[in-house]
Amino acid sequence: MRRGMQVNDVVAYIQAGRDRFVADLKEWLTIPSISGDPGRAADVRRSADWLADHLRAQGFPTVEIWETPGHPAVYAEWPADDPDAPTVVVYGHHDVQPVEPLDEWDTDPFDPVEESDRLIGRGTSDDKGQILFHTLGLRAGLAASGRQAPPVTVKVLVEGEEEAGSAHFAELLRARRERLACDAVVISDTTMWSADVPSMCTGMRGLTEAEVTLRGPSRDLHSGSFGGAVPNPLHAMADLLAALHDADGRVTVPGFYNDVIPLTDEERELFARLPFDEDEWLRTAGDSRAAHGERGHTTLERIWARPTAEVNGMWGGHTGPGGKTIVPAEAHAKISFRLVAAQDPSKIQMAFESWVAEHVPAGVEAEVRVPGGGVRPCFSPIDSPGVKAARRAMERAFGTEVLFTREGGSGPEADLADILEAPLIFVAVGLDDDRIHAPNEHVEIPRLLKGAEAAAYLWEELATALR
Amino acid sequence: MRRGMQVNDVVAYIQAGRDRFVADLKEWLTIPSISGDPGRAADVRRSADWLADHLRAQGFPTVEIWETPGHPAVYAEWPADDPDAPTVVVYGHHDVQPVEPLDEWDTDPFDPVEESDRLIGRGTSDDKGQILFHTLGLRAGLAASGRQAPPVTVKVLVEGEEEAGSAHFAELLRARRERLACDAVVISDTTMWSADVPSMCTGMRGLTEAEVTLRGPSRDLHSGSFGGAVPNPLHAMADLLAALHDADGRVTVPGFYNDVIPLTDEERELFARLPFDEDEWLRTAGDSRAAHGERGHTTLERIWARPTAEVNGMWGGHTGPGGKTIVPAEAHAKISFRLVAAQDPSKIQMAFESWVAEHVPAGVEAEVRVPGGGVRPCFSPIDSPGVKAARRAMERAFGTEVLFTREGGSGPEADLADILEAPLIFVAVGLDDDRIHAPNEHVEIPRLLKGAEAAAYLWEELATALR
Repeated sequence: MRRGMQVNDVVAYIQAGRDRFVADLKEWLTIPSISGDPGRAADVRRSADWLADHLRAQGFPTVEIWETPGHPAVYAEWPADDPDAPTVVVYGHHDVQPVEPLDEWDTDPFDPVEESDRLIGRGTSDDKGQILFHTLGLRAGLAASGRQAPPVTVKVLVEGEEEAGSAHFAELLRARRERLACDAVVISDTTMWSADVPSMCTGMRGLTEAEVTLRGPSRDLHSGSFGGAVPNPLHAMADLLAALHDADGRVTVPGFYNDVIPLTDEERELFARLPFDEDEWLRTAGDSRAAHGERGHTTLERIWARPTAEVNGMWGGHTGPGGKTIVPAEAHAKISFRLVAAQDPSKIQMAFESWVAEHVPAGVEAEVRVPGGGVRPCFSPIDSPGVKAARRAMERAFGTEVLFTREGGSGPEADLADILEAPLIFVAVGLDDDRIHAPNEHVEIPRLLKGAEAAAYLWEELATALR
Repeated sequence: MRRGMQVNDVVAYIQAGRDRFVADLKEWLTIPSISGDPGRAADVRRSADWLADHLRAQGFPTVEIWETPGHPAVYAEWPADDPDAPTVVVYGHHDVQPVEPLDEWDTDPFDPVEESDRLIGRGTSDDKGQILFHTLGLRAGLAASGRQAPPVTVKVLVEGEEEAGSAHFAELLRARRERLACDAVVISDTTMWSADVPSMCTGMRGLTEAEVTLRGPSRDLHSGSFGGAVPNPLHAMADLLAALHDADGRVTVPGFYNDVIPLTDEERELFARLPFDEDEWLRTAGDSRAAHGERGHTTLERIWARPTAEVNGMWGGHTGPGGKTIVPAEAHAKISFRLVAAQDPSKIQMAFESWVAEHVPAGVEAEVRVPGGGVRPCFSPIDSPGVKAARRAMERAFGTEVLFTREGGSGPEADLADILEAPLIFVAVGLDDDRIHAPNEHVEIPRLLKGAEAAAYLWEELATALR
């Protein structure tokens, strides 16, 4: 008996299955499962049904539609043959972004078009293509190894509301927590550095927000009669927001960095090896004229692995045309904090509220409103067993070193980690160039097949690493 | 021959003329000369005609209506008998404020009502009552001294657009500069500290304004993808505006205080003798919770005699409901500077523009727009001959020490000083309690008669002081 599957067998299986795989994906892509459009609810359900049928056809013994107060999710389970094998949840989503502006599409977004190796249409990269490579990979792994069941218990969870904010996802996870019990969660909804530089995401920043109102006089005052002799809430707001960062660009709220897991030397070194073109990045950053941020960190470290305080909006006094010489009654600001592991949104909220209270001058009253509980950051150390195993699978598929990235923004991933209490492993082959959320979304089919190949090796690698 | 007029003769003349004076004033007050209401243009002209007739009837040899592109002014001249006597322009205005909200008036604003000593109606204090006391005073002075002509050449200039911003006043002054040539300008359009504490205004703050725009990225950026790594224009604006004042509340723009004429010890001492109730003042300042301003100065000094930088409005980024986690493209602020003598608006504008340019961080672009040339401050030193002479006239009339105030805001007075190149002398008997610009404007008739008495002595005092 063979001790493991051979690369050549997996590749051969995937190559042989290419046309069937593309045909299946194209069929699924014709369903306009736009979760944000109430008029497309039936299409989102059709998409769930299509996926459920597909998973059954691929051999999953258990396939279920999980209802939510919004759009349905799809759940499938394929138990390992070894009852002591670890269990892994694979997460993705079957809903897609809206397609406006339609006139900027070169093709019909829901009539997918193959142009040489490229597949164009809504959902090709985000996220239908990336879900489907898993079924091809799983079958390739089984075929190449001669197994009847995967070496880990695979639980597939594909939600239908990710592009609409995953409104009911945490609730679903909590309700189905026991069914979803697992040793790791594989996320297939992120991007690699580039087609030439395969990489794995290892973390996402969390978020918490606050709105600050400062109140001075009970009404706007004439600045001739009163200016220079009473506190001006706009001055107090400028002082407050200016004090939020020190000269090194660090957030001054006491304790803000207490729970931050610092970057390791190895992670910084691996980030630094990514072929990052800062000038090009500044162009994508709305032609920003300079990089700017926390001293002692590179741009990639700043956006991926360092927490921030960002003023998103600020207003008060006369903001219309012409002049109005007043001392205004109120000043307002909206502030958001991007958080990194292991910062806790509610601790940061409390620290910020205390800081505001201490920094408001005499004669000005401060109110801090916190809308909701925030989003927790998520993080997978690069030396954790799951990440190392997945990296080996990726490196076997791509035949080159796999580097690491993180993401600056936040999705439902932290809920998976928190509620299922399992480490996250990001295995995905999307690219920033795929124009996800934009007209002419596309993916290269060979890249999806590399994803299938990585997925084929993944279960074997994880079976050993997580045991 | 008598060497001067006697108090008793002046008082007796004024008392004898009281009813005629009140009847004349009431007649004038029935004309709704609201300069801000285009529908009242004919009434403003009727008001000018009424005043011209009145001045002729009082004995002015020369009376003219001076047209402007807006409402007409009234000019009258009564030459001194001595060709070497000084010349004084008396300034006031015959237009009035609008009367809305009408339902808050207890009486018809243009049907003046006498209630014991009080006269109620629009224009009683601001400014018809204060113009008319001059003619009564002038005639009382002539009668008491037995002269046929005043001891100084009196030129009366009563504009018709003061309550509408004096839009054509500077133009009129420049066009009539030679006719208006004078040694001093008496302004009768300000207030005293209180009925019990007669005082003279000695200065008004000037004004210059600026609008600052700071630009970062060319579009709003997702703060998850870019936050913490590019300059945020709102942060730059907060830093900029926070840096505008130092810890002592002083404006940090280099050279800002260079031209400020400091308060003399005597002026500070006289300000301090005004019975100022800071708690009561804070209540009028929109229930402000604390006084706040330049260290080392009292509240009265701050609002009257110290320049300020005041942020009147500030905005940028997301200002609507809910959160939007962006790094915004732009930040805006409207800033005004109250100026004191001898600050020059255009010098302050230039200094501010340079300061902004130097304080904007790398990657942020700054634009400073300056709407118009600003308003120059005006100032009459308390030890100047004209002010001392007018103070003697006021003290003779009120029988008590006359203190000094200033005004924090700005009117057309600086134009009179600048264009006619003459010192200003503020002789007025209005009160903040007169509800000028508000419903139920009123004045106490005995106070107007005290004004007439001061005016009676004023020309004699000025004849000596200005010679």
